[in-house]
Parts: sequence; C-alpha cells; structure tokens
Amino acid sequence: MRARVLIVGCGFGGLYAARALARAAVHVTVVDRANHHLFQPLLYQVATAGLSAPAIAAPIRQILARQKNARVLLADVRAIDAERREATLEDGQALCYDYLIVATGAAHSYFGHDEWALYAPGLKTLDDALEIRRRILLAFEHAERESDPACRAAWLTFAIVGAGATGVELAGTLAEIARHTLPGQFRQFDPRTARVMLIEGTDRVLPTYPPDLSEKARLQLERLGVTVWLNRKVTHADAEGVEAGGERLATRTVLWAAGVSASPLAATLGVPLDRAGRVEVRPDLSIPGHPEVFVVGDLAAVEGVPGIAPAAKQMGRLAARNVARSLQHEPSRPFRYRDYGQLATIGRRAAVAVFGRFRLWGFPAWLLWLVAHIYFLIGFRNRLVVLAGLAWSYWTQERHARIVLRD
Amino acid sequence: MRARVLIVGCGFGGLYAARALARAAVHVTVVDRANHHLFQPLLYQVATAGLSAPAIAAPIRQILARQKNARVLLADVRAIDAERREATLEDGQALCYDYLIVATGAAHSYFGHDEWALYAPGLKTLDDALEIRRRILLAFEHAERESDPACRAAWLTFAIVGAGATGVELAGTLAEIARHTLPGQFRQFDPRTARVMLIEGTDRVLPTYPPDLSEKARLQLERLGVTVWLNRKVTHADAEGVEAGGERLATRTVLWAAGVSASPLAATLGVPLDRAGRVEVRPDLSIPGHPEVFVVGDLAAVEGVPGIAPAAKQMGRLAARNVARSLQHEPSRPFRYRDYGQLATIGRRAAVAVFGRFRLWGFPAWLLWLVAHIYFLIGFRNRLVVLAGLAWSYWTQERHARIVLRD
Repeated sequence: MRARVLIVGCGFGGLYAARALARAAVHVTVVDRANHHLFQPLLYQVATAGLSAPAIAAPIRQILARQKNARVLLADVRAIDAERREATLEDGQALCYDYLIVATGAAHSYFGHDEWALYAPGLKTLDDALEIRRRILLAFEHAERESDPACRAAWLTFAIVGAGATGVELAGTLAEIARHTLPGQFRQFDPRTARVMLIEGTDRVLPTYPPDLSEKARLQLERLGVTVWLNRKVTHADAEGVEAGGERLATRTVLWAAGVSASPLAATLGVPLDRAGRVEVRPDLSIPGHPEVFVVGDLAAVEGVPGIAPAAKQMGRLAARNVARSLQHEPSRPFRYRDYGQLATIGRRAAVAVFGRFRLWGFPAWLLWLVAHIYFLIGFRNRLVVLAGLAWSYWTQERHARIVLRD
Repeated sequence: MRARVLIVGCGFGGLYAARALARAAVHVTVVDRANHHLFQPLLYQVATAGLSAPAIAAPIRQILARQKNARVLLADVRAIDAERREATLEDGQALCYDYLIVATGAAHSYFGHDEWALYAPGLKTLDDALEIRRRILLAFEHAERESDPACRAAWLTFAIVGAGATGVELAGTLAEIARHTLPGQFRQFDPRTARVMLIEGTDRVLPTYPPDLSEKARLQLERLGVTVWLNRKVTHADAEGVEAGGERLATRTVLWAAGVSASPLAATLGVPLDRAGRVEVRPDLSIPGHPEVFVVGDLAAVEGVPGIAPAAKQMGRLAARNVARSLQHEPSRPFRYRDYGQLATIGRRAAVAVFGRFRLWGFPAWLLWLVAHIYFLIGFRNRLVVLAGLAWSYWTQERHARIVLRD
C-alpha cells in the first residue's frame, strides 16, 4: 500500500512539493481552493491592467496532468487534525493522509483593524487583482463625472499602504498610467494631475533591501511622480480617506500592501505560531511532535528567509524530499535557504536587484527582472503571452486589460 | 452653439453612430454602463475559456480618445424623457440632448420565467461569460469530488437552451472541451463521458439559416458528440435540471441562449413596442412623434433585419447621418439593410455561412468565419491576441483561460 501524501495549497511551495514527488511511490493529493496556480510576482500587472488574468495563471489540473501519481481536488481545507492524520474540507468530508505538506501561505495584515479591508483591498489572488483594477479604473471614471473640485481630487488621489515590493510596483505603475496611458482620454480633467501616495511605516521603501537600493528606489519613484511618505503609520482608513502620521489624506482609492498574516489553517495544527500566525517549524520544516507534517512557504516562520517565490519553492522541494527520505527510513535533512537575490520593479523601465553583495538598479535591473520573470512563468504559452503583453505596454504605453468586470 | 448628440449604449450600433459623427459640428456624449466596447461574436470563446476577457474588449474611452468632439461617460441611463429631451442617470443626474440615439440592445428572454435566470445564465456581457466559464469548469471539478454515479452524471451533463448561433457555438465548443481538452486530467471519471445537450423549441438548429445549412450544422454538432433535441420547449428549470418536451433532464449546468428581450430603456420612450419589447421605429430609425430620437441595433424592430453586428453598425451609421442631415435641414433617409450574410461556427474547424444565395459549410466556412472575425475586431492588438489565442487552441486543444474567478 502506497503512502498517501496530502499537499494543501498549490502556490509555489505546494506545486514544487508535488512535482518533487513525481517519481516517489506515493499517492499525491493536491488540494487548493482555486483551480489555478498563480504566478504572484506579476499579480500587480493584472491589478494595473497590463496583463489579463489567464496570462499569469495555469490550471493546476493541467500542470499536473502527466504526473500519474497525483490527483487534484478543488476544495477548501478548513482544519487539520494532526492526531488523527485528517484534513477536513468545507463540506465536512475528511481526507486521510500519511504525510501532510501545508502550503497555504499568508495574506496582508491590517494590524488588528480588519474592518479596513473593505476600504483598502490587499493583493493576493486574481480576484483581489480584478477588484483593485476595478477600483483604479472606476476612480478615473468617477472623476470625469464629478463637478466638485475637492471631490474630484479625492477620486484622483491613490494611496498605497506599505512600500514592500508589491506597494512599490503598484505605485510606480499607477503613476505611469496617470502620466502616460490616460492623458487625452478625459475631458473634465488632466489625468497627469492624479496623485499617487506611497505610505510606509518604516524609514525607507523596500525595507528588506540594502539601504542604498532603498534610496535609489525612492528616487526612481519620485521621478515617476509618486509621493513617498516615510515613517508614517496608518492609524485609520474609511471610504473617504486614510490617516497616516497624524495627517488625513482625502482619497477614494486605498490599496493595502503592508503586514503579514498567515493563513488561519496554521492555528488548527496545534503548534506554536509566531506573531504573524506563522508556524515555527523545526529545521527540517516539520512541526513539533509530528515528523509527518511539514509546513512550507509563507506559512512557515524560518529565520532569515524572505517571503518570496524562490524560498517557497525550495521549501516545497525539501519537504517532499524529506517525505521520500522518511519512506526509505532515512533521517530528514534541515532546510538551507539558497539566496538567489531579490528584485522589484519601479515602473516600466527601472528596477532594483540585490544578490548577496552584488547590486543592480535602473534599466539593467529591469531587464534582469524581465528575463527572470518570464523564465519562471509556468507554461510556454504564458511566457509568450506575458512577454508580448509587457512588450506591448512598454512600447505603446497602453494598458490593454483596461476592462472593468463585475460592474 | 453646437447641437448635443447623446448616444446611449456603446455596442456596435452606438460605437458606429459615434464614429460617423466624428466630423460633424456637434458635441457627442457616449454613455455606457460598461467601460468597454465588446466584440460580442467572440463572447462564447471567453465563456469556454479559449480567450481572456480583455482580448475581445476595448476601453470605449481609448477607442474614442482622438475623436475630439466626443466625450465618454460611464453611467447607467435609467429613463428617457423625450418631451423634455433629457436622459436620467442612475444617480438622478439629467443629461440634456438635442438628438438622441438609443442603442442599448437586447438580452435573452426566459419566456415569462425570469426566475430561471438564476439556474440558466445567458450570455450577453463579459460578466456573463465569466459566470458561464466558472460554471462549466466547476462542474467538472464537482464531478471529480462526487462519489455517487447519478450525482456525478448530473455534473457531467450540460444543457444549452436555444440553438441559434450562440447556442450552437457554446454546444460545439463544450463538446470539444470534454472530448479533447480535458481527457487525462481527472482521476475519478473520463471527461469524454460528459453529455452536451442542445435543446431547441423549433424544428431545426440555426432557424434563421436556410434549412439545408441547419441540417449540415446539426450533423456537424452530432459528429462532435452533441445531442440535439429539436421541437422541445423548456417548461421548467431549477438547480437540478430542466424539463423539455415533457422529459426531465438531470443537469447541474444549464446555459440559456433563447429568446429576445429588449433593454427596459425602450419602455420609457413612450412609443409602441413589439412583443419582445423592441421599438417599432419609422423607416429612418427615428421614433414616432420625435424625429430627433433614433433607435438602432437590437433594440430596434425592423422587418427582415437580423440581430447581428453588421445590422447594428449599419443602423448606427444611418442614424448618425440622419442627425447630420437634420442639422443641414435636409430630409432624413430610410434604413436599407445590406445583407453581408451570416456565419456560425461549430467547434474548432467547422462552420456554416450564408450570403444571399451563396452557401458555405465545413472547414472553408470556418476559415471565412476566422478571417471575418479577426478583421472586424476593434484594435490591432486585439486582432493579434485573438488570432494567437485561437491558433493556440486550434493546435494544442488547450483552453488557456481555464481560470475560475470569483470563487
């Protein structure tokens, strides 16, 4: 009887775990509540209408079609019973396992103010991206219909909270849309008067990057027309604006890209969590008391490992290999993060990149960003489509996915 | 003082009316509740995951950006007061006009049973297409989780009501997805066992085509694996199936492509409507008693003119020219429909086409369909994207937009 390996979540961690088990004598079940694996690093492009949703997603079922030892279930795992080795689905059905790999990730955190989510959506799923796209595009449409100058200014003010990679990418792209894509298309105002505010609680943008790159990123953002507010924590958000650092900003569009809040599934494992709700895994990524349960990706709290795609992939692969070792009665191995660096784009021709002591910025960094992202996309077709889409946006300044859905 | 021309609705009728006024000494206002013009003939491809939503839509604002006498408003016109020459928007705001062109189209009709809409969505907007895509993809996912054979069979049965062009296109594509795209991707069942039922109330498919082409279309559908039920009117629909011709069909997915029901805006004009709620226009497309109000496209009841894109374009253009003639104190001209023929595809390599007495079917008709549809798409980029997308689907049998949104 083959061992049953259950993988919950098919982001980078879960997908790479599943693939790493392709030749193992196990039954793999991959459960995700979406039908697609998502290339999150380009999600901001969907939110800013540069790419269509299918361009950066691939059906999990199609990715794993040829892996004969794997089956895929579209379901929402609500709880894990580690003692009984069971996962409970949204309809009450139980899935039994011999080994479990939990890879359900993390979302943004509203620092205890979840009610702000209504006014300031985060960006983690394709649905989030389409909601943000809708808000951005409709803000300009509302401005065209608004006759009161103060009300119009609030529609033309965009606040992005959190200056990590996502916040920086959203702010840079939004500024370019206002300055380069939309001029000439409105009759009541000049889109170049739109204000893009990037609000950060710490003293620099991209706080996980070296300080000199943070400074370069800030300068590049300001060159694009973004106003950067540092050392300002958001203390309030509602339908008409945000308060940050004691100052009120009248805006109808707030996007949230701050904080980390782990998937609630972690709490059902019954093991110690860190402040963000992440699981404090053992060195081999298993959880205390359950060597058959592994936690990988953003859901795992591992000192010195950033919450980025390469880290999740490496963890997923190691957890899968530790499952295979266990089946061979070999001892598990500890996780060692291989740092391939970090990249963040700022608009359509600048970026910052860091690889150990090696640093890059401006256009060369942007080219590197482009090559890396195209290369790591899942599926040959997606690579073509994304490359063509980005090239089109680059040359024409158009955002071809300027389509409001869910009116 | 320039005359104010208000165009309500920016489908084919409204868009071509606006463009035809580009050189007229008027102020044009185009109002639509969507931000995009939609290429409806390819909407079934979005519904069946062959194309992404932005591929067949273009922002109205972008299309008309260079037409300096036009402004675009995203708004929902709720009522027309033809006496006061005012249109009322959803927020109560009034738009005054000197000339009005109403082009708000028509939807499907549930024959007095609007409650069926919940179980059997129609296909008119991008949101409709994404909802249908979601239902189709989720039906297969549910089947994979279902252990009861009868319940699974209901998830694997798809009923399409109405065998006009949309119904035929949906049925043919769905059958191909089940037979060619999905096999090998499920572990609990063979997708080739899925049943696609096309239910039609009259005695043939494509009732507006010549009878011999209807017969050819039926044979092509059956060759793809579609079961065609003729002479069966749907008498009931609920969450678990439909009743047609006295027989109950257990299905969890019903798609509606039957009947015509005009936009409710027509009723506010205060003029005679036909049974489907369409406006009985005068020969010059104006309405009785109001030579300054024109109705074009699917909303206009004109004897012998089918509800297809070329007819709407021709009407939009004529209405615009009659506005220009009125400004020059010239008499208006009557509408004469130029019949460029009709085309419907059946799967990915067959179609039927009719142009007067000239008829085409099979692969040659499909090639003609492809050329015509690519040619008439709005925007060079959309042409490229759609051509590439259809070519990809054609060669690989993949449906690249197999992404469920709005979970």
